[in-house]
Amino acid sequence: MDFAQSARSKDVCARLQAFMDEHIYPNEETYERQMHAFGENRWQTPQILEDLKKVAKAEGLWNMFLPDSELGAGLTNLEFAPMHEIMGKVGWAGEVFNCSAPDTGNMEVLERYGTAEHKERWLKPLLAGEIRSAFLMTEPAVASSDATNISTSIVRDGDEYVINGRKWWSSGVPDPRCKVYILMGKTDPNAPTHLQQSMIAVPAGAPGVTMVRTLPVFGFDHAPHGHAEVLLENVRVPASNLLLGEGRGFEIAQGRLGPGRIHHCMRAIGVAERALERMCKRLVSRTPFGKKLSEQSLWVDRVADCRTEINMCRMLVYHAAWMMDTVGNKVARSEIAQIKVACARMTQRVVDMAIQAHGGGGVTTDFGLAEAYAYARILRIVDGPDEVHNRSIGTMELRKYSNR
Amino acid sequence: MDFAQSARSKDVCARLQAFMDEHIYPNEETYERQMHAFGENRWQTPQILEDLKKVAKAEGLWNMFLPDSELGAGLTNLEFAPMHEIMGKVGWAGEVFNCSAPDTGNMEVLERYGTAEHKERWLKPLLAGEIRSAFLMTEPAVASSDATNISTSIVRDGDEYVINGRKWWSSGVPDPRCKVYILMGKTDPNAPTHLQQSMIAVPAGAPGVTMVRTLPVFGFDHAPHGHAEVLLENVRVPASNLLLGEGRGFEIAQGRLGPGRIHHCMRAIGVAERALERMCKRLVSRTPFGKKLSEQSLWVDRVADCRTEINMCRMLVYHAAWMMDTVGNKVARSEIAQIKVACARMTQRVVDMAIQAHGGGGVTTDFGLAEAYAYARILRIVDGPDEVHNRSIGTMELRKYSNR
Amino acid sequence: MDFAQSARSKDVCARLQAFMDEHIYPNEETYERQMHAFGENRWQTPQILEDLKKVAKAEGLWNMFLPDSELGAGLTNLEFAPMHEIMGKVGWAGEVFNCSAPDTGNMEVLERYGTAEHKERWLKPLLAGEIRSAFLMTEPAVASSDATNISTSIVRDGDEYVINGRKWWSSGVPDPRCKVYILMGKTDPNAPTHLQQSMIAVPAGAPGVTMVRTLPVFGFDHAPHGHAEVLLENVRVPASNLLLGEGRGFEIAQGRLGPGRIHHCMRAIGVAERALERMCKRLVSRTPFGKKLSEQSLWVDRVADCRTEINMCRMLVYHAAWMMDTVGNKVARSEIAQIKVACARMTQRVVDMAIQAHGGGGVTTDFGLAEAYAYARILRIVDGPDEVHNRSIGTMELRKYSNR
Amino acid sequence: MDFAQSARSKDVCARLQAFMDEHIYPNEETYERQMHAFGENRWQTPQILEDLKKVAKAEGLWNMFLPDSELGAGLTNLEFAPMHEIMGKVGWAGEVFNCSAPDTGNMEVLERYGTAEHKERWLKPLLAGEIRSAFLMTEPAVASSDATNISTSIVRDGDEYVINGRKWWSSGVPDPRCKVYILMGKTDPNAPTHLQQSMIAVPAGAPGVTMVRTLPVFGFDHAPHGHAEVLLENVRVPASNLLLGEGRGFEIAQGRLGPGRIHHCMRAIGVAERALERMCKRLVSRTPFGKKLSEQSLWVDRVADCRTEINMCRMLVYHAAWMMDTVGNKVARSEIAQIKVACARMTQRVVDMAIQAHGGGGVTTDFGLAEAYAYARILRIVDGPDEVHNRSIGTMELRKYSNR
Repeated sequence: MDFAQSARSKDVCARLQAFMDEHIYPNEETYERQMHAFGENRWQTPQILEDLKKVAKAEGLWNMFLPDSELGAGLTNLEFAPMHEIMGKVGWAGEVFNCSAPDTGNMEVLERYGTAEHKERWLKPLLAGEIRSAFLMTEPAVASSDATNISTSIVRDGDEYVINGRKWWSSGVPDPRCKVYILMGKTDPNAPTHLQQSMIAVPAGAPGVTMVRTLPVFGFDHAPHGHAEVLLENVRVPASNLLLGEGRGFEIAQGRLGPGRIHHCMRAIGVAERALERMCKRLVSRTPFGKKLSEQSLWVDRVADCRTEINMCRMLVYHAAWMMDTVGNKVARSEIAQIKVACARMTQRVVDMAIQAHGGGGVTTDFGLAEAYAYARILRIVDGPDEVHNRSIGTMELRKYSNR
Repeated sequence: MDFAQSARSKDVCARLQAFMDEHIYPNEETYERQMHAFGENRWQTPQILEDLKKVAKAEGLWNMFLPDSELGAGLTNLEFAPMHEIMGKVGWAGEVFNCSAPDTGNMEVLERYGTAEHKERWLKPLLAGEIRSAFLMTEPAVASSDATNISTSIVRDGDEYVINGRKWWSSGVPDPRCKVYILMGKTDPNAPTHLQQSMIAVPAGAPGVTMVRTLPVFGFDHAPHGHAEVLLENVRVPASNLLLGEGRGFEIAQGRLGPGRIHHCMRAIGVAERALERMCKRLVSRTPFGKKLSEQSLWVDRVADCRTEINMCRMLVYHAAWMMDTVGNKVARSEIAQIKVACARMTQRVVDMAIQAHGGGGVTTDFGLAEAYAYARILRIVDGPDEVHNRSIGTMELRKYSNR
Repeated sequence: MDFAQSARSKDVCARLQAFMDEHIYPNEETYERQMHAFGENRWQTPQILEDLKKVAKAEGLWNMFLPDSELGAGLTNLEFAPMHEIMGKVGWAGEVFNCSAPDTGNMEVLERYGTAEHKERWLKPLLAGEIRSAFLMTEPAVASSDATNISTSIVRDGDEYVINGRKWWSSGVPDPRCKVYILMGKTDPNAPTHLQQSMIAVPAGAPGVTMVRTLPVFGFDHAPHGHAEVLLENVRVPASNLLLGEGRGFEIAQGRLGPGRIHHCMRAIGVAERALERMCKRLVSRTPFGKKLSEQSLWVDRVADCRTEINMCRMLVYHAAWMMDTVGNKVARSEIAQIKVACARMTQRVVDMAIQAHGGGGVTTDFGLAEAYAYARILRIVDGPDEVHNRSIGTMELRKYSNR
Repeated sequence: MDFAQSARSKDVCARLQAFMDEHIYPNEETYERQMHAFGENRWQTPQILEDLKKVAKAEGLWNMFLPDSELGAGLTNLEFAPMHEIMGKVGWAGEVFNCSAPDTGNMEVLERYGTAEHKERWLKPLLAGEIRSAFLMTEPAVASSDATNISTSIVRDGDEYVINGRKWWSSGVPDPRCKVYILMGKTDPNAPTHLQQSMIAVPAGAPGVTMVRTLPVFGFDHAPHGHAEVLLENVRVPASNLLLGEGRGFEIAQGRLGPGRIHHCMRAIGVAERALERMCKRLVSRTPFGKKLSEQSLWVDRVADCRTEINMCRMLVYHAAWMMDTVGNKVARSEIAQIKVACARMTQRVVDMAIQAHGGGGVTTDFGLAEAYAYARILRIVDGPDEVHNRSIGTMELRKYSNR
């Protein structure tokens, strides 16, 4: 074992950190101000974001997420993991480097399974940061935590597929730059359970698509990205839009899963680190009952718990990334599930403590902690709730002992 | 011991419950719709609220909170406690019965310490539900959890007091119906610590008062009530507005404390009960992995924990209320602190589990759970954070054993 | 509601407390010394126990547990509950007042369902404190948490029943004074599940009965009472020893359940109170890092949590006892389950914190905390593990919402 | 980063694992039987232990703990860490390989700071596994968690030092093979706080040394190793027995700390892994309420939590070991503290769940879980309680933000 970061990873991280210090942190207020200036109509992109994308592209900090690919930086999951922590400290930073969900996963899917036409029409502008994309999976009417429940129908009709269904938590749909959805639905309800679902590319706003509403998280709209409820009524797309083949939706989902999981988890760690930083700064600055909070053992103890929990999660993610890189997602299935549960819970706990340290300041928008909490809380649900991941981990563990 | 509810309390609760069933629950959507219709300008009162106030008044369900008073229902804290749980299930219900914070506490203060003029000008219309009020205590610049830190200055100048300072989390200030603030500040920074602070009545929007901004809680504005940051610059009020006397702010705060604590805690229990109800309804309706969630032992176990935790808190509050009624707030100091910590934490836990049971539906506004979470979370901070109450409880306990 | 203790209950508690102060606490060391003097052969009764039983009898503090009975004090469950807390503070105190498990439950069973002969032979000397008894339920070979799994067979053969099976955790069996077992087993494996089991009285040490071994709890033997593994091979008892009737074992178990549950829970609260007392005494006496532990906020906060958690549990038990007294065990089923889970967990947490406050002293025998921990931990298992009780509570709660 | 184990480490682990499978696991019962056969007089070494030591020595699995030394295997902390997990699964296995506390730490101290005479008299036979040793630090009269409180006096008198004090939790003292104590005490109570303490070697059972009693942990005696309370009255040792120099006790303690911490933590992980293994085996074998426990979501979820928590701790320890190897104990101070707290708590939780899964079987000696619990629980206290380590971690973290 050797916990030293690879030279390549170290180098990119150093450049990324420098970029954050020079361009991102100093513009956090700018971003807020530009968003605020939109008033009611918040589904627009603040100029600073587009400006910084250009800078990042110029500095070669662009599309670094793409693993083993000439299109990206060619970094392994383990090499790339630390970068997501760094970007994760500012909510909108990922997009500056074209490393934000769900585009990263969608680009991987399109690169792997898209036709030449898809690549020209969507992958190229996605890689260029000119358009964005969405992923339509969860449905309000069924327990989507069990993806076999997903019921949107995709029916072949001549050269087309006809799609009917209702999706929600379709992140990115409200963004006016969103041009394509990757949608999961049922092509064959009578096939064996894991062969019923397929994935298909749908042009954003195709006839029959209605964005019913946007969905706030707690009271935050997450504009300009946001989440939407989407109604699909007799939406027709060319048959060639079906990815990989009928009934292979789960297969794509599995492949899409791994790197995205690392991204999510490391971002969560970034969020937790920033919350801890804010918490410490608060504790050294406040003096109730004649003693700085940072000298009261109750708070010192909590800071210690936060530090330890964050470090444990980081190591767990690094190890999972290494397993993905060396033995592959399938063998690392339990590890990939573990990091999801552990990181989301940890971040929720750390942010909650940071909120408590800030008193009223913690629950409002002044310190970014309420936003961080909303992020952490939803992380325990998106991409499979804790319960589903624990079900996999526990079942795999118990299987070692069942009398086959 | 006898856990049977008094006839009087039972009767009022039955009438209150009937009112909730007939007038409140059926109008939850109306309320939402009317608020929504205000668009950007949300600091207005939805008509349904004013309408229902009239009905409640007509049915004698009005001002019931006032203890031992001919103005109210004359119920004891223990008799009144269950009513707050019933009202607590709907966020805006309390106001319908003129039983919402901070008006309840302010009315008690004005009744006890106000001059005839104060009573005529503010107490009477407050009791009539014609105006509302605010309580200005917390300050952004100091650790207000230790109230001796509060630094707004109240300086005598002839027949007037001149007030300078910055407050926040001043609930109710953004409401256009708010006509008076009860403000805490320092009249004598050189007095012994607990005699430095005083309370004074300030007409809402007096010259020198600026509402700097409203403060969202986890993204929710809590309109039309809301919370504000308030700047006070050379605000002049008549000397007669000082309540009870210089340096007696803490004395008033203590008296104000007890009943409000019972209200808060029982409301929290109401919130928790409703979250549990929603959670159960969700669990019986969703079927991932071939089995209803309500039949999966993991969720059955969590429902059980919620049921038990809620019941424990309710009993603890009833007992504290009984102590307040029989031995008084001073003797019941530890008990009054205990319920605050226990109820807020319990509600946070229960709501968090209910959110998890709802998946994506839990973190958005469809089931009221994100709002409930924000309420529960802030309850661990307002009116003294957990840490301060636990400090009192623990110190009182340890004092029994210290070798004085 | 009225939380004032009844005069009768208050009076008995006062006398009990005086007895504890005069006779029990001053003899804790005597008890330890006498047990220690037995050396290897610890299954003997220390003289002090028998001596104090005489005193308690003389003072009328005897058999108080018997509810609604001329044989006992005629106290309700609610009236009696506080006494168990008082007794619970010293592990062996209950027996001094003839109020210890499993004798209390067995006496109730024999009084209700025993024949005249049973009463003469066992109930009378049990009530007199001359003999002791055991309850044989749990079995090592099956998941006894589901009592329908219990597999010991009770087969009718002429005027006798023949018993075969293996029991463990048969508390009281190693005590040489133990003269009768109440045993649960299957009379009809083909009957409907809840009618298969019966209860039968077995003379201690009847032919065919072998005490295989005693079972330590975390290394403690719990002598002279203790727990045993018992093998029953063709044990023959008169048919008249069958209690109430074939297939009515669960019916008896249900009736036996309630009061015993209150006893257990209040004893646990007594254990927790004593642990908290010891913890506080320790905290005021130790000074690491230049400051008494009792002045370090981390420990003050923990003391507060302990105080609040104990109080909540006490109120919950009182309320459950009141429900048993007023609406009966059947209606109060959820409440009776709730207190079991809540009190056991609370006691485990409180004792664990007290241990931590004592450092090395906490895990050894000097402060009684390791013993208290063993007691608390086993309480989460005996009489149904947490999981089984939560299963009942959760199921009852969810049933309110299932679409019948 | 590279999580692949080094070839050297892999090789030794493989040989160690083979040894465990061939010699240790098959002899667990033998060990128990031989200990049991001692009856009352348990402070003896079971023959199987001495037999297996010879085998281990012959196979070159001996003294592997010694880092960077020709005397040992020359493994780094990181290389050696996994071996302790393997050994940790059986309580007495460490000694078979001469890798058990406190001998490992004492040998390091003697090698580094002992005179030629010390080495000949104690180090050589310790390395040969012929004698054992003890470490006398903690005292019953003071809060030893703050080591500056330690008050045993070491006073120079001519060519000798005279020692007076009372120690407890002196592990290994009751072992008849114990021949030397390393003792910490005060040589100069007037020196600056961190220069008052020294370490000195004391021949076991020197005149003036009284073993007052042995200290059970919960109810376990931990024979034949055990823990003792030791009284030292005018114990005289040659001045040359003082290690490193007067006032340098803390310096030695720091050096001694690191590797021992890794050992402790990895052993705890071994204990947790074995508890989880037992838990899983139990869950697949029990069927309450018509369904295997291993198919009930509540238990599957707990198994998952255990798996994740164990893995997180392992990664944290590996990382800390790597830091010790690369940047040294001083820089890695926070990390070394973190693993202590995290591993002990994790092991306690995992073992507690395993106990619950076993019902009554969990709290008695049949599955080794009660013993494992006692081990885990004491681990939160020995070598500094959680609170002291968290104090260090938290303070170091907060120091980054304090405005000096």
